[in-house]
Formats: sequence, C-alpha cells, structure tokens
Amino acid sequence: MNWEELAKELSQVNPAKIVLLVIDGLGGLPVDGQTELERANHPNLNQLAWHGSCGLTDPVFPGITPGSGPAHLALFGYDPLKYQLGRGILEALGVGLEVGPNDLVARGNFATLKNGLIVDRRAGRIATEINQTLCQKIQEKIKIIDGVEITLVAGREHRFVVRFRGENLHEALSDADPQKEGQPQVEAKPLTPEAERSASIVNNFIYQVTVFLKDEPVANTILLRGFSKLPAIPSMSELYKIRPLALANYPMYKGLAKLLGMEVESVGPSAEDLATSLEKNFMFFDFFYLHFKKTDSAGEDGKVDKKVAAIEEIDAIIPRLLALKPDVLCVTSDHSTPALLKAHSWHPNPLIILSSSLPADNLPAFTERNCAQGSLGRLPAKAVMPLLLAAAGKLKKYGA
Amino acid sequence: MNWEELAKELSQVNPAKIVLLVIDGLGGLPVDGQTELERANHPNLNQLAWHGSCGLTDPVFPGITPGSGPAHLALFGYDPLKYQLGRGILEALGVGLEVGPNDLVARGNFATLKNGLIVDRRAGRIATEINQTLCQKIQEKIKIIDGVEITLVAGREHRFVVRFRGENLHEALSDADPQKEGQPQVEAKPLTPEAERSASIVNNFIYQVTVFLKDEPVANTILLRGFSKLPAIPSMSELYKIRPLALANYPMYKGLAKLLGMEVESVGPSAEDLATSLEKNFMFFDFFYLHFKKTDSAGEDGKVDKKVAAIEEIDAIIPRLLALKPDVLCVTSDHSTPALLKAHSWHPNPLIILSSSLPADNLPAFTERNCAQGSLGRLPAKAVMPLLLAAAGKLKKYGA
Repeated sequence: MNWEELAKELSQVNPAKIVLLVIDGLGGLPVDGQTELERANHPNLNQLAWHGSCGLTDPVFPGITPGSGPAHLALFGYDPLKYQLGRGILEALGVGLEVGPNDLVARGNFATLKNGLIVDRRAGRIATEINQTLCQKIQEKIKIIDGVEITLVAGREHRFVVRFRGENLHEALSDADPQKEGQPQVEAKPLTPEAERSASIVNNFIYQVTVFLKDEPVANTILLRGFSKLPAIPSMSELYKIRPLALANYPMYKGLAKLLGMEVESVGPSAEDLATSLEKNFMFFDFFYLHFKKTDSAGEDGKVDKKVAAIEEIDAIIPRLLALKPDVLCVTSDHSTPALLKAHSWHPNPLIILSSSLPADNLPAFTERNCAQGSLGRLPAKAVMPLLLAAAGKLKKYGA
Repeated sequence: MNWEELAKELSQVNPAKIVLLVIDGLGGLPVDGQTELERANHPNLNQLAWHGSCGLTDPVFPGITPGSGPAHLALFGYDPLKYQLGRGILEALGVGLEVGPNDLVARGNFATLKNGLIVDRRAGRIATEINQTLCQKIQEKIKIIDGVEITLVAGREHRFVVRFRGENLHEALSDADPQKEGQPQVEAKPLTPEAERSASIVNNFIYQVTVFLKDEPVANTILLRGFSKLPAIPSMSELYKIRPLALANYPMYKGLAKLLGMEVESVGPSAEDLATSLEKNFMFFDFFYLHFKKTDSAGEDGKVDKKVAAIEEIDAIIPRLLALKPDVLCVTSDHSTPALLKAHSWHPNPLIILSSSLPADNLPAFTERNCAQGSLGRLPAKAVMPLLLAAAGKLKKYGA
C-alpha cells in the first residue's frame, strides 16, 4: 500500500481549515555569514517558529535540485519521481494555456531556414510583439488538421506553445528540431506505432506553417519539441477529501493547481493581495495554497536585498492569516533559490507547522539553521501533506 | 524513476573534485561516558565540523547492522537492499581473488571425513601454512573440469575460496555442506534446471579433491558453500559520469571498488600512506575514495585506546587533504564498530561534508552527539553520494 492508497482510505471530511503558504525559493545560503532569512526582519515568522513545530524538507531527495513542477507536486503529497510533467505541459501552464486529457502540447521556436538548413534556431530572437503577430496570423490560417484543433500561444521572443486537441493523440514523438544549427529541418518521428497519426498531424502543421511563413525575413519556419500529454494524476479532493483553493499570480502555479483539481483564484503579485483574497474566500474551502513568487524571482536575480525585502513583505501578512484562525498554518517553500547561486538549488526548505496538535519548538527565529534543530527533523517534502492533514484531524487511524 | 535512472539523466561532467574519506567503523558507544570519538584528540576533524555541514547516516536503515559490502554500496549511492553481494563474492574479494562476470565462486572449508561421515567441519582448524600447501597441491593437480578453469586461494586456518571460471555457470546451487557434524557429506544440488551442469562440475571437483586428499590425516575432504556470481551492477562512471579512484589497503575494499568500476591504487595501512597516494594521484581523477581500516580493527578487538589512537592518526592527515583544495571533502564511515560491542553495529555514522555550497554548522567538535545536531539531519547512507555530487555541481536540475 502506498501513500495515495492510504490517503484515500484514511482521509475524512471535517470542518478544519489548512493554510499552506509557499514562499517560493525561500531557502538561501550565507552571504557575508548570513542567509537571506537570517538577514531579514520577520518578527511574525519568528513568532510562528517559536509557537510551531519546525523542520527541513528535501523536495525530491537530498542533493536533487527540482524544477517548480516536481517541487510543488511533492509539497502536495505526490511522489515527484512517479508523476513527471513534460516540458511542453509546464510551458503551456506557464503561458496560461489550459490543458485537458486529450491534448498534446509542445514547445515551439520560430527559426530561420535558408537553402534547406536551419541557420538560426531562434530566428534572431525576434521581438515578442512580432512573435504575437505571427502566432495570431498562423492561428487564423491553420485551425484544424485531420479533426485536430490547433491553438498557438506566443511566449517571449521566439518562443511559443502549441496545443493539438483531439482524440487518440500520443506524446511518443521525437523532437522536430535538429538541435544544432547548419542542419536540415527534421520531422517529428513516431516512437511507437500508436503515435504515427500524431506525427503526421504535427509534421503537416510544421509544413503548412513553413509554407505560410515563406516570405518572412527571419521567422520563416518553426521547430517543435517536448511533446507531452497530461499524466493521469489523481486530484487532491480524490486523495484527501478536501476542497482546495489555490491563490496565485503566475500562470504556471495556477495551471499546476488546476491540474491537481484545485479551484484557482487569480491574485495580484503582492503579499497583501494574497491575504485579501484568502479573507474573501476563507469560508468556502478547507485547504488553501497561497503562492508567493517574489522571493524566488529575487533569488534568481541574485539580489540579496530584494529577497530580504520580499521576505519582509510576506512576513507582514502573517497576522492577517492568523486572524482567520486556521486550524493548521504551514509556512514553507517549494525549493531553495539562494541569491548566491542565482538559481534553484538542492538545499532543503525551512518548514513551520502551527497547529494546536503540534508542540512548540520554541526556536528563537525562523531561519534555515534553526529549522535544522526543529522537532520535525529533516523530511522528504512529500511528508508535509500527511502532516498537515493529520494536524487538521483529517486522517483516521491506520489498522486496528 | 529511481535514483540510478535520475543519476544517469542528471549527472554532468565538470572539473570539481570530491574526496570521500571512509574511516571504517568510526562510530562508537560511550565507555565511561565517552565514545571513542569523544575521547580522541582530533582538532582537524573538529575544524571540519565547525566549517562543514554535519549529520548522521543509517547504512541500510535504522536498526540494521550491515556487513562491509552493503555498508559500502550504500555510501557509493547503491541501494544495499537491491544489490546483494554473495558471501562467496565477498570472501573472494577479501582474499584478493579477481572475480569477473563469468565466474562462480564459493567459500570452502577443509574438513574431516571418517566412515562416510563429516566428523569435523573445520579439519581441526589446521594451520594456515598447511592450508596453503594443500591448496597449492590441489591447484597443481586439478586445473580444468569440463572446460571450466578452477582457482583456489587459501584463507586462514581451514578456510579457502574457490573460483570456477567458464561459460554458463549458475549460482543457484545448494551448499555442499551438511552444516552439522556426524552427517554424511552432501552434494551441491541445482536449484534451477540451468544450474545442473554447474552442480555436476562442482560435485566432480569435490570428488576429485576428496580422492586426492584421501591419505591426509585430518584435512581429507572439502565443504563448499555460498555459491555466488557477480551481480549486474552499473559502474560509478556510468551512473555519475565521474572518474573514480580508490585508495585502500585491504583486498576486500579494493575488490569492491573494482566491482564498481573504480581504478584502484594499493596503499600501505597508515593514514600517511593514504595522504601520500592522494597527493600523487590528485590530478588524474575527480572522485577519490580513501579507506582507513585501523579504526574498525580496533573496534572489533574491543580496544578503546587503540581506536582512539587510530582516530588521532587519521585526524593528522586532514590538513594534507585540505591543502589539495578538493571542491568537496566528506568524512564519514561505512558503519559503526563500537569497541564496547567488539563488532559492527547498527548505530548511525557521523558525517561531515565540507563544500563552499554547504552552510557551516558551527558544531564545536566532531562527535556522534554533535552530528545529531547537524543541518544534514539523519539520512540514509545512500543519500551521501547525491549530496556530494550536488555539492560539486555535478547534478543538473530535475524537471521544469
């Protein structure tokens, strides 16, 4: 029996409310002796670390740097090594394109074809506006191929996402991308017999687009890669018998939440926006996922001060969350994004769970080093969801 | 997807160098209130505990006392419950007998046969010199049976190892050993149809040896048990894209390293020998496994002072390791060997990892109790290798 089966069997409905605040990329590394968390002034988070139980979590396992997809799946109690979200799926979620069970999606590039060779895989990084115009024109011209509905959404510069919607589409396709410049264009090849029709639709699409773009100066063809479909993934309601609501600003997190069957509420980018939306919706759900992005963005930019400011911004709304009296309040992160590294990292996430059924660790402050001393110890991130459900009384006893 | 698949996908070559110093049997238990580590004077290891990240590892899982085989496999990132090295294989590695993929090996005893019964399973524990002479004589007489090449290597007292080298040999054989005295000799029985020929070669060998030894006073037959072949085990280079070198003194550790595809350098038994060999080879590899045996031997002997001295001996070379400026330096053990117990034990291993990408735990000394407070927490030993690779920048991001 695995956790999912156990969750289905043991979870029970009750009125208790769980708030999970994900401060994206929160964990850091010392710069001049202090991490971003150690440097920031966050009295409210410190209060939580005093009154709550603390620990550290590894998103996938020790040493593995996760993308946002696996990191969030783990936080929601899904095994990030079992459920893999293809690049195309994540890109689609990232541009806000809705993806259903029949959809095949891929990442696309505009590219430059000359004398039968791909001479620029990024079409000179055309302006986003040109990209948008081209996507719109293609969309008007090519809507359906062999009963399959086609949707394009422009991304930044030369990038776009394409969705093929129809019956019996398969993702077992090689990239229609030579990967290197100076090579001829390649077709998507079916990697299984079932994918043959999908390959022919995809290649037909590329051909039609290339004919349509033939007079464009640089963006005169497209490359498609990362063909993927949605994995069959049980919803959070199905597993945990909860009514979950996601409050997020970025399309990717909203898309990911929708994938897991959460209701999604779009909010502004500030911490205040999160608190306001939570207050408005608090009556109607029993699980709330709040996503705060600024900490991660600042970490990716390598800006210590900006990350410190973002931590202080999110700290300021903690009293508003507490005023709602959630039965369980969890503050953690999906992964670390140390400003020192300007990237996601493999370092564990600081974790606080505040609940009447968990002891106070009485830690003096919410920092990575203090969390290492917390009573929850060092856990895989997928242990967080069971702990939250348990703390909320939403899990029955296992066995007699 | 499991760790091995993940490692193959995520590992990347870079110039960073990792030094893994295994102080065999390091962990201990208090005698008069202090463990061997707490008693020893090891200022250099203490410095590492101050500047590095610390933790405790369980070789297999909590409560399981491992042999050297599983304990080392775990440290190198292999699941010790997935890969099992047969007793014959470990015995062969222990006497320095090379084992290849076609080889079937077994542990042997000289024994005493009288009136058709095994009256002494150890032939009165004959002197090692007599054993060596007998093995040599048998070797000269019996070299090949049915195209299978036979090699004997004497161990201590009545023990030896025999290797059968040839095509299509199978390990599914019952022991050719009655296990109890006063019983008739038994044949090796094939446990699968494919093992029938192997059984007949093994039994033919026992028969020929028994005829040959018929005039010996006590060692007039042999018993064979623990038939085993090499498991199919991926190399460390295949998994991690590293160039690993093992520096060890004892045959078993050298054999085990060879099994995992490491280059092996024989060194003397002292800590100084390890440091000198590392200095000589540091340019040519990017992963170094240093094995120090004296701590374990002293623990097995129940000699606290001797183990303390061994810890102080290894402590003295830490500055020489640091002078090479490895990107990652890890000091840990394969398993604990408390002098109090005179044996391997299930207690976790103290662990330090020193790297610019890991925070300083600022622990006051390198001891079991302090390591329990370290930021790495309590980990399975198989998490060490992912952490070392991550700290060295040798693992890419998982998922988007």
